Amino acid sequence: MKAFITGGSGFIGGYLAKQLLKIGTSVTIFDKRPLPSESTLDCVFIEGDLLNLEQISNALSGGHDIVYHLAANADISAGVKDTALDLNLTTIATYNVLESMRRGSTKAIVFLSGSGVYGDLGATVATENMGPLLPVSLYGAGKLAAEGLISAFSSMFGFRATILRPANVVGGGQTHGVVFDFINKLKRDSNNLQILGDGKQTKSYLYVGDLYEAVSTVLQSQKDPVSLLNIASDDTVDVNWIAQKVIEAMKLPNVCVTHTGGKVGWTGDVPMVQLSTEKLKKTGWRPKYTSKDAVDLAIAEILDRY
Amino acid sequence: MKAFITGGSGFIGGYLAKQLLKIGTSVTIFDKRPLPSESTLDCVFIEGDLLNLEQISNALSGGHDIVYHLAANADISAGVKDTALDLNLTTIATYNVLESMRRGSTKAIVFLSGSGVYGDLGATVATENMGPLLPVSLYGAGKLAAEGLISAFSSMFGFRATILRPANVVGGGQTHGVVFDFINKLKRDSNNLQILGDGKQTKSYLYVGDLYEAVSTVLQSQKDPVSLLNIASDDTVDVNWIAQKVIEAMKLPNVCVTHTGGKVGWTGDVPMVQLSTEKLKKTGWRPKYTSKDAVDLAIAEILDRY
Repeated sequence: MKAFITGGSGFIGGYLAKQLLKIGTSVTIFDKRPLPSESTLDCVFIEGDLLNLEQISNALSGGHDIVYHLAANADISAGVKDTALDLNLTTIATYNVLESMRRGSTKAIVFLSGSGVYGDLGATVATENMGPLLPVSLYGAGKLAAEGLISAFSSMFGFRATILRPANVVGGGQTHGVVFDFINKLKRDSNNLQILGDGKQTKSYLYVGDLYEAVSTVLQSQKDPVSLLNIASDDTVDVNWIAQKVIEAMKLPNVCVTHTGGKVGWTGDVPMVQLSTEKLKKTGWRPKYTSKDAVDLAIAEILDRY
Repeated sequence: MKAFITGGSGFIGGYLAKQLLKIGTSVTIFDKRPLPSESTLDCVFIEGDLLNLEQISNALSGGHDIVYHLAANADISAGVKDTALDLNLTTIATYNVLESMRRGSTKAIVFLSGSGVYGDLGATVATENMGPLLPVSLYGAGKLAAEGLISAFSSMFGFRATILRPANVVGGGQTHGVVFDFINKLKRDSNNLQILGDGKQTKSYLYVGDLYEAVSTVLQSQKDPVSLLNIASDDTVDVNWIAQKVIEAMKLPNVCVTHTGGKVGWTGDVPMVQLSTEKLKKTGWRPKYTSKDAVDLAIAEILDRY
């Protein structure tokens, strides 16, 4: 088995590569960033830009069995200042991956979409058969556009596609996200922690190992040419709870916690996200970690790396 | 009231411009094609390309109240040969319109999406609250991407958006579509008519006047910042029926009708499309024409122009 991972220099891509190598899959990573300096992955690394169609087409001409397409803009808040970011790094990048697959021989793709496609559903639990999809961030719009492109290419050119909408993925290798941000803020200033919004933003957190197990389970059981599933743990936690957990784990006695206020942390943020995993659970997958445990574990792993 | 119409040189745009001028709205048309030679529209015409962000930004800096964004790739089958067509002419073009609105002062947009976003639902009637949206054509993927962009920009930058998913729109000014194609084929060869697929593709057809009335009614009653509605007549007809109607109307006695076979006419075609209009009808709108009457009227109007 030969796997091709876009965005393999990042947190989830690196974790995935490690797990795939463990089971004997050969791995090619395509990323514009070099592999992390501490990386010991025994893989082929191709430095390249997904916005360069020829680069990705050439890289994908090597007879890979499956593409794990993880590269995308990961900074939701950045879309306000640069509205073209998600269009380029998510939508057009995905088109280039799909067009390269069409030109070559790789006919299977796994794509990490996200809950952002659902927009702001309030207290409603998001199921995959729900519409209309009205994203409130350009990040969500980019993911939705990528889903549509993958579906169309799959139908028109006979690809097999697995589209997953995960909750917030956490773990030791994180390079962004609320857990990572809080730790970094407190490493810089151990007396003050400013929380964006009112801190009551309530979401599900998924340990990266649970994500890997879900992807693996779905790929083994998938019957339809295109499959689309939510992935989340069963509970949710709010941002204030995460802040307290980080402060406790860092053993900081005197942190003044302040809030910028408002229901959302930034334009495009969603106050509450709850994903139904009924569909996924029919495959037999169950998360090993709750959101609470996943966040605790991620805090410990991130601190361990410092 | 100052309206800005992208794609105003086309069939629906031209009809819309005429109706808006009748009610005293001043109209600017932005199109890369010139106005049709027979056009008598008393409007400002700007020749420009939506793929040129500066061109559209400059054109939209003139204090317009609303954008009717109709420009898009209209040839579904063309996406198989040129997979970048819908990405460019629909997705990126829509991004450029929205970014130009953000830079300027126009904060309302009407967008014509399409049933293509639903993918192939078989005999299921498509309602707006249905998911997942898995388009089977790049045309549908482009429309879905545009919907997502419009939703995100609206939420992030305070636009008011009206997204409509119309059935097949027909009328005298058509420049593509099955009715137009059959008439043209028979004008070239009055003895033979080749139908793409088995001719049993069953869809709803909407007279362009009914579309205009729906847009007008929705704009008057819309309360939400983003509204998304199907627009269709209540019945459906199949392609073989349309072929017979065209042959009858053209009074051709000896037409040999053949079929290329298969359930779809081309890659990306959908055999059956049925759109629920329950949501739209709550505004009071009713179609004046059934699909049958709309097709009959369109045939008569197209033949009248020859």
